[in-house]
Amino acid sequence: MPGNQDPAAKYFVCSESERACFEAGIKLGAIYHQYVGTPISLESVDALEKAIEAGVRIQPFVSDVKVRINRADLHPKKSTYKYTSLKGEMLDVWLQIRYGGYLATCEMKYVRDLKYTLMRVANVTKA
Amino acid sequence: MPGNQDPAAKYFVCSESERACFEAGIKLGAIYHQYVGTPISLESVDALEKAIEAGVRIQPFVSDVKVRINRADLHPKKSTYKYTSLKGEMLDVWLQIRYGGYLATCEMKYVRDLKYTLMRVANVTKA
Amino acid sequence: MPGNQDPAAKYFVCSESERACFEAGIKLGAIYHQYVGTPISLESVDALEKAIEAGVRIQPFVSDVKVRINRADLHPKKSTYKYTSLKGEMLDVWLQIRYGGYLATCEMKYVRDLKYTLMRVANVTKA
Amino acid sequence: MPGNQDPAAKYFVCSESERACFEAGIKLGAIYHQYVGTPISLESVDALEKAIEAGVRIQPFVSDVKVRINRADLHPKKSTYKYTSLKGEMLDVWLQIRYGGYLATCEMKYVRDLKYTLMRVANVTKA
Repeated sequence: MPGNQDPAAKYFVCSESERACFEAGIKLGAIYHQYVGTPISLESVDALEKAIEAGVRIQPFVSDVKVRINRADLHPKKSTYKYTSLKGEMLDVWLQIRYGGYLATCEMKYVRDLKYTLMRVANVTKA
Repeated sequence: MPGNQDPAAKYFVCSESERACFEAGIKLGAIYHQYVGTPISLESVDALEKAIEAGVRIQPFVSDVKVRINRADLHPKKSTYKYTSLKGEMLDVWLQIRYGGYLATCEMKYVRDLKYTLMRVANVTKA
Repeated sequence: MPGNQDPAAKYFVCSESERACFEAGIKLGAIYHQYVGTPISLESVDALEKAIEAGVRIQPFVSDVKVRINRADLHPKKSTYKYTSLKGEMLDVWLQIRYGGYLATCEMKYVRDLKYTLMRVANVTKA
Repeated sequence: MPGNQDPAAKYFVCSESERACFEAGIKLGAIYHQYVGTPISLESVDALEKAIEAGVRIQPFVSDVKVRINRADLHPKKSTYKYTSLKGEMLDVWLQIRYGGYLATCEMKYVRDLKYTLMRVANVTKA
């Protein structure tokens, strides 16, 4: 998907591998800020994972994506106020972006050391 | 679900039917503001509808809910930038809240006259 | 603001006090689900409070609103990853809705007993 | 801000310029998906612009940011339902990320040709 297949290529002044990383960042930032706050319990978590994946898959240059929401903080909804809302720390996302000759593999996951839900580039390869 | 079954009842100073309407408003406001902006195409719309419904169903006093996203503005994702994001106007939601002896039936739908995505109370009955 | 001043009145089948509570619920649900997840630190909290209030004030039938974000969990941003994102528990909202002859006073606040950010109707009066 | 100043550097396998682009993508994706849907009118737009900028400024490696919301689609709120909600097309964002020896300048803006709110890398320089 180099310049001649990307109708927006002319708007970018960067390398193909930088572009792949830029596109990956967009998708991870989008996931966090679109869905954090969503009501969630053990009954609804599967549907939310599928919807997040489906919404990522249709975005530009996404090659593959897996979204896993940590069930450790979720409970079956036994009583009226026993559910929670999605927090960044629950998210475990794996994403591949292909742009031009490059494949960027990225992740989002809570990192205990940093007390922070880190979005990171795990790998950028020619492929 | 009157006072003795609602652990938060003591925090409210209103009638059961007013409470039912209040709870309905919360859920409709939540749907609009949680999901508007989500990337969407014909490939992802089913998953998003299911996730929204699942997230509503677990909230307090929800008796039933149906979420339909208008496909008229959606397309199959044939090219890189050919998808859209969820707009309020696309939402068609039907919701029932049961609180104490009352059932409130509410809807959210774009109203052409008002040029506005209206959340409305269609009915409040003893039930 | 009875029927003859509310261009949408014909779409509602409920009393004026039920409508006031419904409108209040919408605004509180909207605040939670629009803004939870927003990056926040002591440097940005004032601007966020003002923006939330400004966005509520323009919505239908809002008479008054105060938004306070609890600073106890916020820090000055001393290092790269030292900021957080808005959580429901940080929100302290006071809202008045006037519809027809009624004034509904509502709040959103974390309730320790329930381990839940509760949206509640504090009062509905003829006024 | 090379490895020895970024406490998360060890989690990344990419160049400094790729990292700068990744971080820029995160911020732009975050803006779009956090704030699209926010109620807005001419009375609230200034406060929203300031809050978005304040929320971006505290995120990692942000050097500078300007957020402008297009007022062409906004109106003073003369009547009950005369306001709108923030759409991606209204956003005009300019952002600089500094990472290590690199400065990435990026933008988000609606592009008529593409019928798409494009996030783009305008420049990556050694600096």
